[in-house]
Amino acid sequence: MASSSKEKNKAPAKLWGGRFAEKTAASVEAFTASIHYDARLYKHDIAGSRAHAKMLAKQGLISAKERDQILKGLGQIEREIEAGTFVFRPELEDIHMNIEKTLVEKIGPAGEKLHTARSRNDQVALDVRLYLREECRNLIALLAGLQKAFVVLARTYQHAVMPGYTHLQRAQPVLVAHHMLAYYEMFGRDRERLSDALKRINVMPLGAAALAGTGLPIDRAFVAKELDFPKITANSMDTVGDRDFIIEFMSAASLVQIHLSRLSEELVLWTTEEFSFVTLADSFCTGSSIMPQKKNPDIPELIRGKSGRVVGNLMSLLMLLKGLPMTYNRDLQEDKEPLFDTVDTVSQSVAIMSQLLGNLQFNEARLAAGLGGGYMTATDLADYLVLKNIPFRQAHAIVGRTVAFCLSKGKELTELTLKELQKFSEVIEGDVFKVLSIEGSVASRVSPGGTSGKMVAKALKRAEKEMGISA
Amino acid sequence: MASSSKEKNKAPAKLWGGRFAEKTAASVEAFTASIHYDARLYKHDIAGSRAHAKMLAKQGLISAKERDQILKGLGQIEREIEAGTFVFRPELEDIHMNIEKTLVEKIGPAGEKLHTARSRNDQVALDVRLYLREECRNLIALLAGLQKAFVVLARTYQHAVMPGYTHLQRAQPVLVAHHMLAYYEMFGRDRERLSDALKRINVMPLGAAALAGTGLPIDRAFVAKELDFPKITANSMDTVGDRDFIIEFMSAASLVQIHLSRLSEELVLWTTEEFSFVTLADSFCTGSSIMPQKKNPDIPELIRGKSGRVVGNLMSLLMLLKGLPMTYNRDLQEDKEPLFDTVDTVSQSVAIMSQLLGNLQFNEARLAAGLGGGYMTATDLADYLVLKNIPFRQAHAIVGRTVAFCLSKGKELTELTLKELQKFSEVIEGDVFKVLSIEGSVASRVSPGGTSGKMVAKALKRAEKEMGISA
Amino acid sequence: MASSSKEKNKAPAKLWGGRFAEKTAASVEAFTASIHYDARLYKHDIAGSRAHAKMLAKQGLISAKERDQILKGLGQIEREIEAGTFVFRPELEDIHMNIEKTLVEKIGPAGEKLHTARSRNDQVALDVRLYLREECRNLIALLAGLQKAFVVLARTYQHAVMPGYTHLQRAQPVLVAHHMLAYYEMFGRDRERLSDALKRINVMPLGAAALAGTGLPIDRAFVAKELDFPKITANSMDTVGDRDFIIEFMSAASLVQIHLSRLSEELVLWTTEEFSFVTLADSFCTGSSIMPQKKNPDIPELIRGKSGRVVGNLMSLLMLLKGLPMTYNRDLQEDKEPLFDTVDTVSQSVAIMSQLLGNLQFNEARLAAGLGGGYMTATDLADYLVLKNIPFRQAHAIVGRTVAFCLSKGKELTELTLKELQKFSEVIEGDVFKVLSIEGSVASRVSPGGTSGKMVAKALKRAEKEMGISA
Amino acid sequence: MASSSKEKNKAPAKLWGGRFAEKTAASVEAFTASIHYDARLYKHDIAGSRAHAKMLAKQGLISAKERDQILKGLGQIEREIEAGTFVFRPELEDIHMNIEKTLVEKIGPAGEKLHTARSRNDQVALDVRLYLREECRNLIALLAGLQKAFVVLARTYQHAVMPGYTHLQRAQPVLVAHHMLAYYEMFGRDRERLSDALKRINVMPLGAAALAGTGLPIDRAFVAKELDFPKITANSMDTVGDRDFIIEFMSAASLVQIHLSRLSEELVLWTTEEFSFVTLADSFCTGSSIMPQKKNPDIPELIRGKSGRVVGNLMSLLMLLKGLPMTYNRDLQEDKEPLFDTVDTVSQSVAIMSQLLGNLQFNEARLAAGLGGGYMTATDLADYLVLKNIPFRQAHAIVGRTVAFCLSKGKELTELTLKELQKFSEVIEGDVFKVLSIEGSVASRVSPGGTSGKMVAKALKRAEKEMGISA
Repeated sequence: MASSSKEKNKAPAKLWGGRFAEKTAASVEAFTASIHYDARLYKHDIAGSRAHAKMLAKQGLISAKERDQILKGLGQIEREIEAGTFVFRPELEDIHMNIEKTLVEKIGPAGEKLHTARSRNDQVALDVRLYLREECRNLIALLAGLQKAFVVLARTYQHAVMPGYTHLQRAQPVLVAHHMLAYYEMFGRDRERLSDALKRINVMPLGAAALAGTGLPIDRAFVAKELDFPKITANSMDTVGDRDFIIEFMSAASLVQIHLSRLSEELVLWTTEEFSFVTLADSFCTGSSIMPQKKNPDIPELIRGKSGRVVGNLMSLLMLLKGLPMTYNRDLQEDKEPLFDTVDTVSQSVAIMSQLLGNLQFNEARLAAGLGGGYMTATDLADYLVLKNIPFRQAHAIVGRTVAFCLSKGKELTELTLKELQKFSEVIEGDVFKVLSIEGSVASRVSPGGTSGKMVAKALKRAEKEMGISA
Repeated sequence: MASSSKEKNKAPAKLWGGRFAEKTAASVEAFTASIHYDARLYKHDIAGSRAHAKMLAKQGLISAKERDQILKGLGQIEREIEAGTFVFRPELEDIHMNIEKTLVEKIGPAGEKLHTARSRNDQVALDVRLYLREECRNLIALLAGLQKAFVVLARTYQHAVMPGYTHLQRAQPVLVAHHMLAYYEMFGRDRERLSDALKRINVMPLGAAALAGTGLPIDRAFVAKELDFPKITANSMDTVGDRDFIIEFMSAASLVQIHLSRLSEELVLWTTEEFSFVTLADSFCTGSSIMPQKKNPDIPELIRGKSGRVVGNLMSLLMLLKGLPMTYNRDLQEDKEPLFDTVDTVSQSVAIMSQLLGNLQFNEARLAAGLGGGYMTATDLADYLVLKNIPFRQAHAIVGRTVAFCLSKGKELTELTLKELQKFSEVIEGDVFKVLSIEGSVASRVSPGGTSGKMVAKALKRAEKEMGISA
Repeated sequence: MASSSKEKNKAPAKLWGGRFAEKTAASVEAFTASIHYDARLYKHDIAGSRAHAKMLAKQGLISAKERDQILKGLGQIEREIEAGTFVFRPELEDIHMNIEKTLVEKIGPAGEKLHTARSRNDQVALDVRLYLREECRNLIALLAGLQKAFVVLARTYQHAVMPGYTHLQRAQPVLVAHHMLAYYEMFGRDRERLSDALKRINVMPLGAAALAGTGLPIDRAFVAKELDFPKITANSMDTVGDRDFIIEFMSAASLVQIHLSRLSEELVLWTTEEFSFVTLADSFCTGSSIMPQKKNPDIPELIRGKSGRVVGNLMSLLMLLKGLPMTYNRDLQEDKEPLFDTVDTVSQSVAIMSQLLGNLQFNEARLAAGLGGGYMTATDLADYLVLKNIPFRQAHAIVGRTVAFCLSKGKELTELTLKELQKFSEVIEGDVFKVLSIEGSVASRVSPGGTSGKMVAKALKRAEKEMGISA
Repeated sequence: MASSSKEKNKAPAKLWGGRFAEKTAASVEAFTASIHYDARLYKHDIAGSRAHAKMLAKQGLISAKERDQILKGLGQIEREIEAGTFVFRPELEDIHMNIEKTLVEKIGPAGEKLHTARSRNDQVALDVRLYLREECRNLIALLAGLQKAFVVLARTYQHAVMPGYTHLQRAQPVLVAHHMLAYYEMFGRDRERLSDALKRINVMPLGAAALAGTGLPIDRAFVAKELDFPKITANSMDTVGDRDFIIEFMSAASLVQIHLSRLSEELVLWTTEEFSFVTLADSFCTGSSIMPQKKNPDIPELIRGKSGRVVGNLMSLLMLLKGLPMTYNRDLQEDKEPLFDTVDTVSQSVAIMSQLLGNLQFNEARLAAGLGGGYMTATDLADYLVLKNIPFRQAHAIVGRTVAFCLSKGKELTELTLKELQKFSEVIEGDVFKVLSIEGSVASRVSPGGTSGKMVAKALKRAEKEMGISA
């Protein structure tokens, strides 16, 4: 047929160009193109198209032969991209159009049928969900690796004592293992949160089409099954404008990076000359271009700094969504770069932190030296008085005055004589010195979750079990 | 005993003051006090202290008589606060110290025993968890109310058709009910997310004491049971420095408010003279101080604006935590005001939006008028061609040219003759006009989640069931 | 000399590696490298090194011959980078080390002298200041271009009237030119703010060395003069840790992008079928992959969306700096990517928006149609009553009731008879109809800054003068 | 006149209520009211109304008698508010309506004339500009006070040496005074930035009316002069929607608080047992509810934490403005609380930090102890080699190896013999020990801005002069 063949010959430059009288301005092409960053989605885009093509054939919307041509063409394209021989064309805007256009060039009219009953709106939603499902699972695994690193450290330094701080002031002695297991808990929550987010990522959007669904006889459940989604989205309009799953992931990822920043701060502190609690491997530090003696904790510093980046990305996406009317608006294209950057940053940070922890040594001598000073068993003395039936508030005041006395004399609590101690409270007896010792203090904290060796051993065992480590 | 009674008389101004030589500067008291905002936690602080006192007695750390005195004193204090007769003293810093000090004044030494085996660090963690558990449940309920409002609107306008937009350009016709149910889905996800957050809020922290646990023989499980917590925290150091549950709540709350901003944007648009899709009740609008004719959609505008506030609060907390070393640092005191503000803002916004939706009318005539123009059934024509075996890309191009032709003639697609249509593709036949009609287009979208009457009826039924509404 | 030559042969892999026993881990190299993004600073790095080398020679720290070798080598490197033949080596971390190492390879020992009396800490500060000075000036120029586009539109549509809105409700009629000049003012403030920021960017940091200054006899003023800086930084410690100038720029840039988002929102609204106030050129829009009829305002949508990105970058940097101790910390390396992204995003957005405005047409018929409805001259009626000595509040109430009457009758104010009007106030006379007309309303607003033709002509003239446009 | 008197009797509840058929819902009143926070603007609102009333009289829009009645009434209201006897009514929405309504109740019809030629839109812009002008000037003065505190510390510890850090690793010795003056510079930039912001705050908006200007014969220049504004805004539409001056202030204020967070971090570090560089006065610290020995640096911690709040407020406002169409939208009401909170937080933080610095002591013994270890004169050794004509890169490598040798032997650089040193480079001679000493190192840094006593004395003198301190 004349008109139809003419149309084929005069194929418009843009896949959507039929209605347009003018060519897109070059600056507009450059400004709107996303191929330089969404090319990363090629695998997910192809996977989605495969499932879609199979469904179209199953439903009789394309023939089995056309389906096979499409699958073959997609396979070729995937191999070319992986081999680095695929030529991405910016004027084709994005990964979706680059693949579809190339497919048409490779296999002809069958390729022109692939976009049947599909819009870029639901296609991009599918691609991002496939991508993020994979990355979210990956991050969960990396976090387990990080937790393991803490468990290993806890086991290695199971009996070492260090100062525990509040307000960065020495407060009470704790086991190094207890401190390590605090991080174990923190990153465990991150894993839980990501697992919850995954439930809302793992929903199949294809079939929403542009916004209203389609009149063509598609089978969404089939596509979901092909791509291993447990369920499909419920409302087509909501589907194409929904980026909640991205924001939820980025919120959870922000907390991960914030946690890493807290850990990094401690590592930076602990590697100062003043603290010297830990030594990082040379291979995990760098030097100075001017000061020949320097060995700097660059990794924790960079990770700490990257918390700004990850939170900035979250801010970016929340602001992006603010005030957007229902369904797809082009603003949403701006969701990908922050997401990719967050995925990369957080995954790399978790991974390298795990390595760094595997290459770190606690300096037990310095930890021990840090236990003097700070009157770290003052609370134990107060508790001792409580057990002698002094109301806690009075006990607190008595010990406060005792400490003030020590300060004025330049003495430790343990350096006071029983007589001196009794000036502050008559109920004090010889057994007090046991509670004033660092070891006694640590051992006494037997409340569940406390730092006593007994409790920590229990916690450690549980953690090893959860991590599949045989003790 | 002399020294002990002397101590009672010379009680230090501060409950922690024993060690200090100088009085706290007045400016420091003002700067560090939190009583002006944390007074709001009085109920939770008292509930926590009740459970703690019961546990202390059960464990023999105080006598049954002392417990009863404490419970009685706390009851009095609670009633005084609720009656507005309690005098808050800023120099006592916070709600915890205000209550404890007053208790001591009321009941004497027994009051001085309440803080046994407890620190403000775990006490405040408990109070905030109790508070947030309550507010989180409340918000979940408010969101269900909002979802109901959408279900009611969907039922009311079940058969009304309106333009569906992408890029705010008319795209395809949809049912008003479908649009309403898109919001139903969106806010449903918010409820899910908050329920997940609740799991991590609902954990009992008391017993972590300052940071290391306590040596006094406490029973954490008992306290948890008293306060209806399903579990206790696992690591004392993690417990006192953990604010993740607040941030997770604020992330979820930010998404709620962002969703409200999207809805608000649509309401502001729809109430413009240009759209006129809905009319808000006079009682939900305000006027102008200078322009006598104005009726402004203030509620949606304010709610939209408040998204900045809620996201700002989230940023605030993330930044707060950045780089904080393990356990308690005073920075953490800054967690409360943003949290309270977010709880209030989001809860009030959800509540008033539900009311507003209950007082809103769609203008069906204007919706209908909006269906002309925009060539909203162009996709239907392309799908029609696909079913006649034209590859989709060719079909798209054919329709693109048809629309360009219409534009040049100032005509609608439905105004073309069959002959004119056939110039663009010979496969077009008389049955085409059915697919070009708005009604035909809507009815055709039978894919699951699509906008056809059939699918929407199903979705509506499900929603009504979930909401406990009998249709 | 034996030892010295031996040292030359056994040159350490890292320029700072002398002190290190282990090789840097590959993962650490990858994690800490910045060459993939800071390569963009090559021009500024080379310019800085040129000035530094000249100064070293002038001060006798290197010979004239060495200086010439350095300058020649740097010239070669610059040409290679620009020709794309320079090989960047990630293991050399950053642009500074890549250039220095290559220089040494090209010219030998003279190259090893370039880093005399300099640290990467002050070197990177110099590079970024040179870069940002250039980009800040560029952005100021682009903003002037944008302002011009508004002036041109204002002149083109000087006498066209459109509805002015508050709360997106029609409020009072205004001249299109007045609306355009509002944007002229807004972006004018942005230029001012950037000019102020430039004062603090344009300060020469080199010579701070690592943090303490140097003992080598350098001449900072000479370097400043070479590089056209009006002044040098005052304190070496402050110098190497200062990123304020970046944040100040990013704050100003955030406001620019927020302004663009406000403009974009209006463009998106104005191109809806419902408003139809403007038509964008086809060449500045794109279509839909599924809906053949669509023509979407992608550019304003993307620009609006990019506001999230630019603000996210600002957030990122503020968070980065939070709590950093004095002088250089490795966290600071994270300053560059957000800065570069903001520079690119804002510059491109301003540039393409200027083009888009040059390709946009107001639809005067639709503007005119928008002037009916909305009772937009109600304030004029109130002012009329004021001039008849009715207190304004009473006048406001009278007109409010008149509008309510119109609403109930479905009439415009101008459709009321004198008699009807007089029911609301006896002071109304025949001259009232002049103030009720749209033209009369606009013409009346002669207060400075108001929308009357007279005032707008004046403002337009001033703007044309400021922009160097001859009217 | 019958109708007019009837109108007076039936005065509508709302000042804008004439057009409305239904009463505002109570929940809407509560949700939209701002009186609970904007009451703080009463002084500025009254000042603005005074100037406006004088202008109205001068222009013949009200009589001299009416003006006097208004001025008298406003005076009464001001006194009542200051005396705490004024009753604020939430149903009157905001401070503007509360004052106007009360004025009408006090003085009758003359009060009803005050809002002539004015809208809340320009009135609130005026109030906020007056408020912020005052607060911005106040903050500038407080910052000068903070700078003074650093100058005093610099003078007090002019000759004390401390370790200078990069990456929190000991790097090079510096004078305490140099470190203090680094902060002097930092906060000096803040003052500059606020002064620049002030230029854009200090512009008179009244006369823009609702958005279009007014037809009544007003005199904007007169009002500006009355209120001491150097200029008036140029475009009425821009005027009522402009919140740039708020955001610019909040950006500058965010940097101030970030700077304070950096300083606070150092203070927290310096007060640890491990560093012990400074001692804070007891009166500037608080204790623990459980640990009797604790003395915590609460002030710096809180200030550090408040950086999140101030930056969150900035984010809040940027997000608020995103995508708002031109002129006034109700969203803008949300600008005030974040602004007030930022003003309060930053001003109080600066003020109390100044006090704290005045109550702080450096522990010179501990500073001195910190100078050993860290090989802090390694750069000096490298520079020494440079002066002996070893290319810097070789010198750096030589010293790196020397340090590695020291590390392996557990020695300081100064503990090596000349012979040992010469193993690393033959050019080393007996004069090397001078450059290896801490004092020699500090004294050598004579580059402008460097830490030598000479340079610091110069900088200190300049600072004292700028601050008006006689040395």
